[in-house]
Parts: sequence; structure tokens; C-alpha cells
Amino acid sequence: MPSNQFVAKSRRLRSTIYSSRIENQGVTSYTIYNHMLLPAGFEGSLEETYNHLKNHVQIWDVAAERQIEIKGKDAYQLVQLMTCRDLSKAKEGKCYYCPIIDENGGMINDPVVLKFNNEKWWISIADSDVMLFAKGLALGKNFEVSITEPDVNIMAVQGPKAFDLLERVFGKEILKLKFYNFKYFNFKNAKHLIARSGWSKQGGVEIYVENTKSGLELYDLLFEEGKELNVKPGCPHLIERIEGALLSYGNDMDINDNPLECGLDKFVHLENDIDFLGKEKLIKIKENGINKKLMGVKINLDKINLRSAIHLTIGDKIIGEIRSAVFSPTFKMVIGIAMINKPYFLSKDQFDIVIENRKYKGEICDIPFV
Amino acid sequence: MPSNQFVAKSRRLRSTIYSSRIENQGVTSYTIYNHMLLPAGFEGSLEETYNHLKNHVQIWDVAAERQIEIKGKDAYQLVQLMTCRDLSKAKEGKCYYCPIIDENGGMINDPVVLKFNNEKWWISIADSDVMLFAKGLALGKNFEVSITEPDVNIMAVQGPKAFDLLERVFGKEILKLKFYNFKYFNFKNAKHLIARSGWSKQGGVEIYVENTKSGLELYDLLFEEGKELNVKPGCPHLIERIEGALLSYGNDMDINDNPLECGLDKFVHLENDIDFLGKEKLIKIKENGINKKLMGVKINLDKINLRSAIHLTIGDKIIGEIRSAVFSPTFKMVIGIAMINKPYFLSKDQFDIVIENRKYKGEICDIPFV
Repeated sequence: MPSNQFVAKSRRLRSTIYSSRIENQGVTSYTIYNHMLLPAGFEGSLEETYNHLKNHVQIWDVAAERQIEIKGKDAYQLVQLMTCRDLSKAKEGKCYYCPIIDENGGMINDPVVLKFNNEKWWISIADSDVMLFAKGLALGKNFEVSITEPDVNIMAVQGPKAFDLLERVFGKEILKLKFYNFKYFNFKNAKHLIARSGWSKQGGVEIYVENTKSGLELYDLLFEEGKELNVKPGCPHLIERIEGALLSYGNDMDINDNPLECGLDKFVHLENDIDFLGKEKLIKIKENGINKKLMGVKINLDKINLRSAIHLTIGDKIIGEIRSAVFSPTFKMVIGIAMINKPYFLSKDQFDIVIENRKYKGEICDIPFV
Repeated sequence: MPSNQFVAKSRRLRSTIYSSRIENQGVTSYTIYNHMLLPAGFEGSLEETYNHLKNHVQIWDVAAERQIEIKGKDAYQLVQLMTCRDLSKAKEGKCYYCPIIDENGGMINDPVVLKFNNEKWWISIADSDVMLFAKGLALGKNFEVSITEPDVNIMAVQGPKAFDLLERVFGKEILKLKFYNFKYFNFKNAKHLIARSGWSKQGGVEIYVENTKSGLELYDLLFEEGKELNVKPGCPHLIERIEGALLSYGNDMDINDNPLECGLDKFVHLENDIDFLGKEKLIKIKENGINKKLMGVKINLDKINLRSAIHLTIGDKIIGEIRSAVFSPTFKMVIGIAMINKPYFLSKDQFDIVIENRKYKGEICDIPFV
């Protein structure tokens, strides 16, 4: 039987500029992300909030997506050193999803990197202290850079009606913003960096709030203007993100997995003339072929409450482990993301999984789910 | 009005080998520490569990105190580079409390460092990814070291009856273990590293469990043998740790504070012939004198629920901020740990603090509290 515990709040688990608002708006659970409170659920069933996200528009407190600012003469060199994605031709005003890896190719983070110019970058991080990795490297290499965590608190506007809402506040200009581009927009004498991005497949933007006062006015106005559109507070949604196969660092992958095993091949540029950590290791891994791979799984079950990885078996043999899972209203069964050993990620045999002492059948599939 | 939210459990917020046990034993709240669940409260009032810890013996799941293993030819050099404490004469089998600092002297962590030998060290970390900092430095400097997080899950035995209990399991040998020393002890064909340390002032040990099966048997046996001693599950205790002025990284101090500001002067060895990051900066800071300092505060209040820093004022002037606080049954008022600006940490004037729209008076004092 699953038991529930409260979050013990303290300064170390940093509140965000939006915390007092969302606590008045019915947040029911938190996760911790970059030492900060990240809402994980609101009033209503998981399926209700899922349906709302897929049909309307939500405002999310995702301030826990912290920014690491890399600034200075060697900024590009440092950012490139940390990622296997070729950023040599990166454009100003664009966002880049970049696996950050260590000397073994192990995943340290999977941020979105924003290029302001060659000497100023933001790394919008998943849940690990990339600032400490960057600092260590810069100090060890004597790079001329400053590495800081600026006071930026992202709110996301997500859902099919996101741009209907945004247009009411920012005008038609916001509609021209292209996917994974960012630009500054004016609101009440403050400039807000807005990127067309977000951790859902429902469309929308992320607003990188640097001016807290103006940002909170904007937050309130979005709820005011969004009434007709049935706007609600929300957060990254377990059903929606697994159905959309959006990977979650720390859940689906960690430092023991490399980007090829995570299916991130298109962000791994081994043949280009760039210098990054783990390059030789990844070249060797690619030559030899990977030994495990992130795959989708479907299980004949009508609910699941996964808090740590569970082994998948065929007979006595462990063929992998499931790392994230949820009941999907779309597929009418449990779907999940699992690290599957060789050769099973190719053969896709049926497997067994034991949950609360009962055995269930499941199958391996490609992601995204179809 | 404070509101409560549940912890949303997932693989990313790692459970420990003890989680299922403590959830059967009445854990009511969690904090997150090094991406792991750390119990923060058990059934009973805060004052009841405090009195129990001060009078009996508790077993704590502190697996979230992760170990970073630094191994190899350059291990000492790397560990020393990260800390301002002189480890050149460190002895095998001893524990050392070490501020880890960056190039500015900013606190990155305040771990206990265990020396096995010159080429093998464990850093028993507070809540930040020291492994990434160490990796960055080692890669940047081309050090010959391996840096890993071994599967070690600490349980602490704390309280005045801790050694009564430990003697029943490990015999008289355990009584000879000196403060901040560690040694391997046998239990059911497994060896367990035991250090005389722990995050309370009530005495006891920390058992670094590497063999999970044996460790869980030990956990269960300690509860069995401890029945007569009124043993209970517990966790680091807010009242006890503030009364004892045990600093909490992330709560009382962070990367914006240096060890001199944190009153850690005796672990800052600026005159010794050792090489560490931020040494020159700290020398300059010491010459010029610090601009702020961690101090104790006492406030005429009978309860407080502090989740982020609150300013302390004299008239219109902000003189510092309180970072941790609790009602102390010993002092019969709220006590706390605050960063106080110059010159107020010397003059110790009375200040005002506003909590829930009401103003209260407080005074600055030295820590430990007397």
C-alpha cells in the first residue's frame, strides 16, 4: 500500500516567486528539482488535469528549471566541451536541446541551451548541479568565463489555447515566434525573454522572468485574461509527458546511461570537428554498438504507482528495468519508459513484471508510442 | 496559513534501502537531499521526538548523505584542492569536517571527509552535487583519479543510549571507537564501516552500509535489541540541531557565503603550505574583515514555520536575514541562525522581524546558544 508523506519545507528547498500563488490555487504535491519546489499535482484527478492540459491552457511554475549563465571570452568553448551536440554553428536567439555528458559519455543533464551570442549562453537545466561541473572544468582549464545562476524564474504557458491567451497580452507579434526561438517582449516597462518551448507536446512558451515584480503582474494578468479560455494552474504532467515520450533526467536516464542508449543519436555529433568530453568513448561505443536502450513498454494493467525502477524479466532472466510509468487514458493500459538490455530492445519479446506480488505481461515498443 | 503538500515520489527522488521500513514505522514527512528521500518527521509532536532523541536512542535513515569516492594517484591532490582545511597531515581511519569552496571562497558543501589512505577518500556530502565539481576539476586538470558514488547507505544510531545499544550488537570493541574515527566491524559475515559521528549532539555513530542485505538485518536487529532501551526511528531534528548550532548547508549557508562568514575559521588554513581554490580570495577577505556573519538570534515568539529567509530590521535598515528557526523548549522562545551584516554582528542590537504581518522583537547572540 503506498503511503504519503508531506514535504518538509525549508530554505534549502527553495520556494519560487510563484509558490504563494500556487499554494492558494490548489497545488497538492511537490517534487524537488534543482533544490527548488516544483509543483507536481493540482486539485482534480490526474486524468482531469491531463484532459484540461490537452484541451485548454495552463500556467506552470517551472522556476525550478534554473539557468546557468556562462559568460566571457571562453564561453562557447566551455559550453561545447560539455555537450556532444555541435554548437559551432548555433545561432543567436535560438534554443538547443543538448545532452551534457562526462568523460565516459554518461549523461549529466539534458538542458535546453540558449545562445545570446558567442560570449553569453544560458543552460536551462534539468535536475543536477551543472553549475558545479562547469565551474570545475573552467577552473581546471583556466577558462576566462564567469559562471552564475541568475535570478530567473520561468513560468510556462502550455496547451492548445496558449497562443490565444498570449496574443491577448502580447499582441500578434508573439504569434511569429518560431519553435525553439527566443526573443524579448515588453510588458509593463519590463522586458521578458520568451521562448517557444516547454515540457509538453501541447504547444506554448516559456517566459524567463528576470523582473520579479513585472513577472508576478504578468502571471496574474494571464489568469485574468485567460478566464474565457478556461485557464488553470498546472505543471509538467506525468501522463502527457510519457505519452509524448518526453524524457525526464533522473527518472529515465542518469550518469550511468549515455546519449546513444537514450536514443538521442541526432544530438550526438561524433564526426564533426568539435571538442567535447567523452567523444572518444562515444565513438568506441558507437562502433561496438550499444548494450541497452530506452524503449517504450505497454503493460496490461489499469494503474501503477512507480517510485523506483522495477525489473522486467523473461523466465529467470532480467531483460531490463522500467523507470517511469503511468496509466494512459489514450492507450487504456499502463505505458512506460524502460531501459532494455541487448538483444531484447531489438527482438521486442513479451516480458513479465511483478507488481505488489502479482505478475503481469508487458510488451516492448518504440517511442514515441503509437 | 501554512499549507501542506505531499512529496510526489519518482525514481528521480531516490528511495533508500530503508524507505519501506520507515514508511511502516510512521515517517510523516520527507525532505530531499542529494536527489534522495531523507526523513524529516515521524509520528508524535516535534517536541516529543526531540525529548526522545535527548533521552533514549534513535535509528536514522540518512542514506541521503551520499559518498563521493575519490580514488587514484592524484586523489589527495584533488581533495585538498577543494577544501581550505589542511589535509596534508590527515590520518587514515579519521573523519574531517571540511568546507568545500569555489574560486571565490563560496561554500559548495560542508562534508565529512574520510581518509582511507592517500589514494582513497570518501566525501560524505551535504546537499549539492560535489561529484560534478570534482569531475570537472579532475578533467580540467588531467588528474589521475576515479570519481564515483558507491552504493553506500548510512544509518545513524544517535542518542545518549546509542552505545548501550551498539554494545549489545557489536560487543565492547565498539566502545573504544573515538570521536571522528572510523573502523570496520563485523556483523553476520559482512564488514560495516562505523564512524563515531552523526548530525546531533547526543552522541552515537554512523554505519556506512555497503552490504545491503546485512545492513537491513542489522537495522532490524538494532530495533529488536533496542526494545528495552525505548529505541525509535528518527531523523536529524530541527530543534536539536539548531539548539546545538549544527549548520545545515543550503539552509544556513550557500555558495554566496564563505567559511569565515560561517564562523568556520578553525577549518580555514590560510598560512599552511597547501594549494586550494579560493585561497587568495580568502586571504584578502581575512585581511579586510568579513562583511557578514552567521549568528544566533532569539525572538519573543512561541512558534515559527520558516520556509525561506526573512529580513531582520532596525528602523528602515535591513541588518540581516534569519535562515533557520524553531521554537526551543530549552530557551522557551524561538531561536534561529541568521546571517547578520556588519557592524551588527558585533554590536548585537535588538532587531525587528515581521511574521504574518505582525512585528516581533529579537536579539542577536553568539552560537552555540547559551
